[in-house]
Amino acid sequence: MYFLLKFAPLFLAVSVCHGWLFGDFVGKQKELDEISLWPLPQKFQSSAVAFKLSPARFQIVYAKESSAGPSCSLLENAFRRYFEYMFGDLKKHEKSRKKASDSDLVELKVWITAADPECDGYPSLQTDESYELTVDAPSAVLKAANVWGALRGLETFSQLVYEDDYGVNNINKTDISDFPRFAHRGILLDSSRHFLPLKVILANLEAMAMNKFNVFHWHIVDDPSFPYISRTFPELSQKGAYHPFTHVYTPSDVKMVIEFARMRGIRVIPEFDTPGHTQSWGNGIKDLLTPCYSGSTPSGTFGPVNPILNSSYEFMAQFFKEISTVFPDAYIHLGGDEVDFSCWKSNPDVRKFMEQQGFGTDYSKLESFYIQRLLDIVAATKKGYMVWQEVFDNGVKLKADTKIHVWKERPQYQDEMAQVTAAGFSALLSTPWYLNRINYGQDWENIYKPDPQNFTGTDAQKKLVIGGEACLWGEYVDATNLTPRLWPRASAVAERLWSDKSVTDVNKAYNRLTKHRCRMVKRGIPAEPLFVGHCRHEYKGL
Amino acid sequence: MYFLLKFAPLFLAVSVCHGWLFGDFVGKQKELDEISLWPLPQKFQSSAVAFKLSPARFQIVYAKESSAGPSCSLLENAFRRYFEYMFGDLKKHEKSRKKASDSDLVELKVWITAADPECDGYPSLQTDESYELTVDAPSAVLKAANVWGALRGLETFSQLVYEDDYGVNNINKTDISDFPRFAHRGILLDSSRHFLPLKVILANLEAMAMNKFNVFHWHIVDDPSFPYISRTFPELSQKGAYHPFTHVYTPSDVKMVIEFARMRGIRVIPEFDTPGHTQSWGNGIKDLLTPCYSGSTPSGTFGPVNPILNSSYEFMAQFFKEISTVFPDAYIHLGGDEVDFSCWKSNPDVRKFMEQQGFGTDYSKLESFYIQRLLDIVAATKKGYMVWQEVFDNGVKLKADTKIHVWKERPQYQDEMAQVTAAGFSALLSTPWYLNRINYGQDWENIYKPDPQNFTGTDAQKKLVIGGEACLWGEYVDATNLTPRLWPRASAVAERLWSDKSVTDVNKAYNRLTKHRCRMVKRGIPAEPLFVGHCRHEYKGL
Repeated sequence: MYFLLKFAPLFLAVSVCHGWLFGDFVGKQKELDEISLWPLPQKFQSSAVAFKLSPARFQIVYAKESSAGPSCSLLENAFRRYFEYMFGDLKKHEKSRKKASDSDLVELKVWITAADPECDGYPSLQTDESYELTVDAPSAVLKAANVWGALRGLETFSQLVYEDDYGVNNINKTDISDFPRFAHRGILLDSSRHFLPLKVILANLEAMAMNKFNVFHWHIVDDPSFPYISRTFPELSQKGAYHPFTHVYTPSDVKMVIEFARMRGIRVIPEFDTPGHTQSWGNGIKDLLTPCYSGSTPSGTFGPVNPILNSSYEFMAQFFKEISTVFPDAYIHLGGDEVDFSCWKSNPDVRKFMEQQGFGTDYSKLESFYIQRLLDIVAATKKGYMVWQEVFDNGVKLKADTKIHVWKERPQYQDEMAQVTAAGFSALLSTPWYLNRINYGQDWENIYKPDPQNFTGTDAQKKLVIGGEACLWGEYVDATNLTPRLWPRASAVAERLWSDKSVTDVNKAYNRLTKHRCRMVKRGIPAEPLFVGHCRHEYKGL
Repeated sequence: MYFLLKFAPLFLAVSVCHGWLFGDFVGKQKELDEISLWPLPQKFQSSAVAFKLSPARFQIVYAKESSAGPSCSLLENAFRRYFEYMFGDLKKHEKSRKKASDSDLVELKVWITAADPECDGYPSLQTDESYELTVDAPSAVLKAANVWGALRGLETFSQLVYEDDYGVNNINKTDISDFPRFAHRGILLDSSRHFLPLKVILANLEAMAMNKFNVFHWHIVDDPSFPYISRTFPELSQKGAYHPFTHVYTPSDVKMVIEFARMRGIRVIPEFDTPGHTQSWGNGIKDLLTPCYSGSTPSGTFGPVNPILNSSYEFMAQFFKEISTVFPDAYIHLGGDEVDFSCWKSNPDVRKFMEQQGFGTDYSKLESFYIQRLLDIVAATKKGYMVWQEVFDNGVKLKADTKIHVWKERPQYQDEMAQVTAAGFSALLSTPWYLNRINYGQDWENIYKPDPQNFTGTDAQKKLVIGGEACLWGEYVDATNLTPRLWPRASAVAERLWSDKSVTDVNKAYNRLTKHRCRMVKRGIPAEPLFVGHCRHEYKGL
């Protein structure tokens, strides 16, 4: 159940002298069973020597060399959060005057090494999330360049703590050196097909942090509803939301999501998908969508964004100018998937435009024409963009730093990953991780196995894989069932994207994931069970 | 979207004179859209004439002819419950002194007609659940023989109430005459594979009442754990539960479940499945299970209940004597499914016994030998019994009133239903309703379609079909995900078992069920969405 990666031969030798434990350790299984790191760190060694943690004495403090101190509210907030995860409600614990024993771990020293700890910054694709963690009495030390690595290390530290038979928190002597395999590890939630109340989004951001996810891909609007309140075009949500007051995200809601995510080292990348998937946009913005025709007369229904009107691009310029200021991340997801050409084909003005442009009857050229202009508009806001794979497949000219999001099952996603990276673009994978799709039984195994670099290509191509995202499309989920459907199935993706590629043993993963799921439950996340069994601390909600 | 069953031609004529609405009424669709009865009553007619209900004035009272009055705590409790479902928290509403207008519905008169209203009784398989409901200003009248029919009518009345655009509760002039198609309409929950906290069970009993289910089949123990605290054999749960204090049902928990169910007209039928599915029993009771052998020596593992020892039967006699007093229902479910013969075959004492009894190598004869003795033991407690179909399939001699529970997929359940009823036994169906099995998409349709009487047989055979049960086995569900996985999928079974057999239109059902699901959500049940959309009152929990 335990792993020692990469440096196993080295540590094997050392272990004889120092009593370190690693690999499938015989005899000490019970103590080690209590530990259940998820996702598994890159380098990890643990000893049978255990220290006790007293909630009345244990503290998380700053190392004296640390560039971040008590004025770093992101870390202060994280210290409180992890203290509560480990010891429960703070108020219950009064400080003790009794002296700690020699077998106590009395503090975790957090040592931020970079000149700028980034306390008030935002995480990015370039963020260094690595950390080093040493647990030994009387102090544990967590060392990271900046707050983002410290957040990951705090999660790991809290996962090392386990209750013994007396209910006392213990932690074993441990050395960890850790960093993510992929820089982009995301979850897509869809707040259009069903509105997701703020507290559902926030709870899932908490669960994401427990799994070291670092991107919340917010598929915020789509055909069925437009819950985003735009300051520039308030009629979009007034006319396009399920309800203009109860089923919308206000500017302050959006700010809260972004800040809540930031505090957990999570980027918020909004998706405003065009030109398809825009039915709800058409309610508020006249002439934005293409009028479909039935023979020679308008049918009263509408298709994708109308690509032949200048007004469409003027709208997009204003709209994305707002979006670029509301969302601090360097990237916006522009969608571009599943454009249905039938409406465009039915419209005589569109057909005429096609002729004028010399597109013949190839409507993917019209789609590219639209996307090309949109990309130029967004590039002018200084944002980078992500797009679904169709945009690449259709040969649209893309900025070099465009991220191509692979999602289609046919042709094989491995071929698409190879083609995208062969063309020199960064790719991220979602095809095997459409978690809205459910099956009876332990389907987490099929989520766990796929590797985003498992395609035929050069090392340079493999390096262009920046990660992946678990997607929970909203047809069948809302506040009633979203969280247990996502967790712990998304945890399988979390380990695939964080841990070393050699971490593939499903049986070992099952044991750790079962405990990790119980830990999420203990922390208030209604993560569903993997199989028959129970948790020491069961879910207390309904 | 509206139905008028059986008497449609008659009412068609009448409607011209009196303005009754029925069938797919054109023009009045909007008002009628607000109504969403589930399960659909047997006979139903509604008019466009609407009355208003004021929470400050509306009352549920007893008709002066009613045999039940304010001393009937079951009804008092139900009045309060349905008042809250319709108007929200009671405390918010002070009585008004203003006079009601002519378009107000000021009261629902409940009229119990039987000499014994059964206020303190328990529902049974013979219970008359029929009721008649007339809504007209100033009073609605709900007439039923006893409290059980009144409970069903109260649910229907509350479903007729809808909010208009001002948020005012309205109800249309309506006549309903209703009764269930089948007498046994159950839900099986499994509290062994995962422990189910009391509040999860109670919430699901509430949801059952909203769907007119009347049997809670409590699959309370099984291989993985034994959460039932037995007064006679406390070691069963002490040794067999996941945890002897936190993962058990105390006698008072069991009483509470039974009483909570009774208040909602729901029978509690416990299942203590033997001789298989008993691994957890063996922890507490020495020699109860068959020791398995590896060659000529005991392997240390155990199989089904040991059928060759008298002590096994002595234990069962004492145990079921307790069960027969703890659970008031006339029936106990004795299981009898999936007996694995391999352990019996491995055991030399069992083989010797087989020889002595002249069973040859037919271990189903040994199984029948055990079951036969068990049935005699349980019959002595004056209880009737239900068994899984294997007991019938193996030719065990059964009391005439035994209920055979059909669950296997092969051979076809239709053949099994035919064989069971041809042999003169009552049958109930679960095969198509294993709701633990999930599929992506709108799988409620496949749950909705099967009809338990859809097999080749005589009218007399069809009459022996007493109903069915939706089963939610516990491998993959616990408090985190059970309720949204069960609802509204189980609602599809509810309508199949209550409404007329002609009610089969999936599109019409979709519209009603979508609203019924929102109603459950409004009442605090986290029933999952059928598809894209929203509810006026979304789920407020996490």
